[in-house]
Amino acid sequence: MFVQMQLRRIIINEIQDHQVILLREVDGERSFPIVIGVFEATSIDRRVRGIQSPRPLTHDLVAACIDRLGGELQDVIINDLRDHTYYAKLRIRKDDELIEIDCRPSDAIALAVTAQVPIYVAEEVIEEAVGDHS
Amino acid sequence: MFVQMQLRRIIINEIQDHQVILLREVDGERSFPIVIGVFEATSIDRRVRGIQSPRPLTHDLVAACIDRLGGELQDVIINDLRDHTYYAKLRIRKDDELIEIDCRPSDAIALAVTAQVPIYVAEEVIEEAVGDHS
Repeated sequence: MFVQMQLRRIIINEIQDHQVILLREVDGERSFPIVIGVFEATSIDRRVRGIQSPRPLTHDLVAACIDRLGGELQDVIINDLRDHTYYAKLRIRKDDELIEIDCRPSDAIALAVTAQVPIYVAEEVIEEAVGDHS
Repeated sequence: MFVQMQLRRIIINEIQDHQVILLREVDGERSFPIVIGVFEATSIDRRVRGIQSPRPLTHDLVAACIDRLGGELQDVIINDLRDHTYYAKLRIRKDDELIEIDCRPSDAIALAVTAQVPIYVAEEVIEEAVGDHS
């Protein structure tokens, strides 16, 4: 089962290389952090703030490739957590097919924010993640 | 007219945010530098060295999206230089169509290195770039 979550906070720490994004349930109280790189955090932060870049950045390029090749990003999922590492997928609708493409959660979230599509997290991932951080 | 060039050097300067990649003609002597960000330079450098990441990085994700949506990256072009800014495109073959997608040269070169496709630069861009730096 998947639960819809949303990006709640981006915590950028300029002294460290590892940054934190916080996901929280849309219809609930549970939340958990994901550690990502500074580049990815900055990219997500720009998107959330609506800062336009004069030139397409890498996540804009992913979105453009999906669009121009006839796909439509339906949503992103965080479907696994193993050894403290999260695994994610883009789910792209093309004609009658649903194409799933593996990616890092930071890329998935950056694309979800760009394309304004939902973020779903597997129930068992939430349970383990919340357990890890409670 | 487009001239095939290749990535000749990546100069990573850990003190500065701006890094330099050097392109050089495949069948000639002309070369010119392009200034890119540290993230992009690191990404290209990893690809050139063949360092495998355990998880797909953002440029791997672009390549996977193109592939899974039925496209094939044919080549990348650097087609314009305005106000010291380079403009690039991915050229993707899909069925009988050639789809061009705008991107930054750093993304184009990272993808060319990943997918092992040629890099072409417009003759007038080379003339201007070489003039700028000679």
